Amino acid sequence: MKNIPDILSGTPLFGGLPQDQLQEIGNISVNRHFRKGEMIFSEGDDGEGFYIVTDGRVKIFKLSAEGKEQILHIFGAGEPFGEVPVFSGESFPANAEAIADSHLLFFPRTAFVDLITANPSLALNMLSVLSMRLRQFTVQIESLSLKEMPARLAAYLVFLSDEQKREDGVILHISKGQLASLLGTIPETLSRTFAKLADRGLIKVKGRDIRLIDREGLEELAGI
Amino acid sequence: MKNIPDILSGTPLFGGLPQDQLQEIGNISVNRHFRKGEMIFSEGDDGEGFYIVTDGRVKIFKLSAEGKEQILHIFGAGEPFGEVPVFSGESFPANAEAIADSHLLFFPRTAFVDLITANPSLALNMLSVLSMRLRQFTVQIESLSLKEMPARLAAYLVFLSDEQKREDGVILHISKGQLASLLGTIPETLSRTFAKLADRGLIKVKGRDIRLIDREGLEELAGI
Repeated sequence: MKNIPDILSGTPLFGGLPQDQLQEIGNISVNRHFRKGEMIFSEGDDGEGFYIVTDGRVKIFKLSAEGKEQILHIFGAGEPFGEVPVFSGESFPANAEAIADSHLLFFPRTAFVDLITANPSLALNMLSVLSMRLRQFTVQIESLSLKEMPARLAAYLVFLSDEQKREDGVILHISKGQLASLLGTIPETLSRTFAKLADRGLIKVKGRDIRLIDREGLEELAGI
Repeated sequence: MKNIPDILSGTPLFGGLPQDQLQEIGNISVNRHFRKGEMIFSEGDDGEGFYIVTDGRVKIFKLSAEGKEQILHIFGAGEPFGEVPVFSGESFPANAEAIADSHLLFFPRTAFVDLITANPSLALNMLSVLSMRLRQFTVQIESLSLKEMPARLAAYLVFLSDEQKREDGVILHISKGQLASLLGTIPETLSRTFAKLADRGLIKVKGRDIRLIDREGLEELAGI
């Protein structure tokens, strides 16, 4: 079996940290074993610590008022879970259950906070690692969705202008974050797509006010 | 013009932080103005601080030995740059130049490190924000690439088995991170795709050793 620093270096949370810091993080971890079907935590429980799957499979889910289960994620080897609420000091927003016999590493919140407090450079390195991954993911999402994004955004603007009964401009009534998710992308890619359409002389953006300079061009781009 | 905490709350790095922490971060920032064509930093410069674009446009690029320019990113309003090397205490790995008149917020490294050291909860909240965004991005990349991933991975395994002249199994000679990027996805999605093929009884994974249990099924999936 792999040693703990090796496992940690393969996770999105700690991969890229120097060996001594992997060791320090490993030192606060606790091995926990859950049988298939066993609950790991429940929605509303205190976020006492987060987990990394060593092996096995964990289901994160919510229950509706009628008891209907909605699966949010399934995590396997090398994947952390519970860290978002634990870092920010909140309770768990969903339930976690082992769906196979699972070995987990548990990181108690208090020990992790102590470690970060004593080693600001650990926090900085983690911020660096996560920022870098975010950047890479942004590029990846762009390369996956950018080709279609100008057409999608153009179609949305034309639709909005019809809806708002204005030929020459529209007002966005939702945030750019919401619009990004509506169009199936992320805010960064949406911003670039706005800039692209503006560069091509199709629109002019002033906050939520979008002037449609070349409506025909937009329709053509949208394939309408 | 927006106030600084508002600008910060719209950035991937600080969005989601409580108001008082946005204010504290805003307090260490310095306004900087660069004219179109002006250099902001050069490859190899000390990472003395990172930037957020308030308005304008910044190009991040490398120069080859022959002086040929390779653009890595173009950043616009609300986007941070330089934070990855600055957090980890490294020098800038590329050049930055304003390609339009640009207003930037500059965050000196020493002031930022002092702030994190004095407020571990700021670091924890930032880690929480970044982890959450990573999770969302993972889901987004999956929904963008998952449909095609089983076919792509199956095709790659069949190709590899031909190359390695073994009918019943292959050995991966590259890391899963490299394989993910080769197949146009991220390690998380690749792991899930491996699990999916295994669940369907097509392969069996043991580290870098992949047994092809149903080669015909793989070929069919790959559309070969």
